Amino acid sequence: MPKKVDHVKQREKIAVATWNVIAKGGMEKATVRNIAREAGVSVGSLRHYFSTQAELLSFAMKLVSERVSQRINEIDFSMPPLDAMKRMIREVLPLEDDTKKEMEVWFAFTQKALSEPELQPLSKEVYLKMRYGFEQVIKTLVKLDLARPNINVELEVDRLYALIDGLAIHGLMHPEYLSNEMIESILDSHLKSLCKQEVL
Amino acid sequence: MPKKVDHVKQREKIAVATWNVIAKGGMEKATVRNIAREAGVSVGSLRHYFSTQAELLSFAMKLVSERVSQRINEIDFSMPPLDAMKRMIREVLPLEDDTKKEMEVWFAFTQKALSEPELQPLSKEVYLKMRYGFEQVIKTLVKLDLARPNINVELEVDRLYALIDGLAIHGLMHPEYLSNEMIESILDSHLKSLCKQEVL
Repeated sequence: MPKKVDHVKQREKIAVATWNVIAKGGMEKATVRNIAREAGVSVGSLRHYFSTQAELLSFAMKLVSERVSQRINEIDFSMPPLDAMKRMIREVLPLEDDTKKEMEVWFAFTQKALSEPELQPLSKEVYLKMRYGFEQVIKTLVKLDLARPNINVELEVDRLYALIDGLAIHGLMHPEYLSNEMIESILDSHLKSLCKQEVL
Repeated sequence: MPKKVDHVKQREKIAVATWNVIAKGGMEKATVRNIAREAGVSVGSLRHYFSTQAELLSFAMKLVSERVSQRINEIDFSMPPLDAMKRMIREVLPLEDDTKKEMEVWFAFTQKALSEPELQPLSKEVYLKMRYGFEQVIKTLVKLDLARPNINVELEVDRLYALIDGLAIHGLMHPEYLSNEMIESILDSHLKSLCKQEVL
């Protein structure tokens, strides 16, 4: 049993080293050699835990997605629904150092998945998982009778999801032109625009 | 004089080869060797035109941005304003093969600029140029008295820009989940939501 725990811990340590390497030097620096050095393990040992670079990258990225899910699950939702939604969406925006780093490595991964078929299943899985989260936001507005009448649920889900990812990428790339305060104002204003006048 | 023309043409040929290499294999494949092979020139000859990889990438990306501007300048704007805006914004969405390829290389470039300081000036320049375009859209709505009252211009510029880039990236990465028809419906619906009821 301790051996299994060690195995899990070593894999996580290597995943964290992968994030650090990508955050510092971009995806191009995410070679087995660089990641092994950052993790303080030998290349041979790293190959024992992950047989291909794609397997290592997918594991590291899956861990990013699980961390986000875990933080969202830990939110105490005993607050007004719009506040709860904002609280949740903040977890996928680069507003803090840790979410910024997550976005940075996720952005690099997504981009790499475009030309690396082995990474596509995870890229799709996380896209759908995120989309499901935004679907719950819109459907909750409808269920609680907060949404404006005749709202097009499917369209609003894709619109909200695209807006949030666009804000995340702009905020990450150009924080000097898109401040955290503006990101939060846009999020606030967008959610309110989905609600009927009477509830605001 | 013909020598200068040749110089310009050779540089453009190499830029197009750069796009092809990135579109096929991602930014990691954009080595001087691979680009020279794709362009059908020697590595020495390529180095004559561009002394560093960053110079070559910046030139290739600047050309993408100029092509987009040129297509927008060629639009015949004698149509209803909302249609003209949609027509313009379509040029920065991956709805056709050529805009799809542009987005793909632009996305790779943007991502690389995160860890490559030499690429940041161009990344910033294009960000601001695009933002200026979206600012014109919102300001035109106000000027023509189409915008809904009390519109927050700065917020709506950043919101529209983030939405369009988010749609572009989602459409590029996951066309199976976000169709061109949905992208166009969202664009249409978003622009209408910025207008006052009476004009729709």
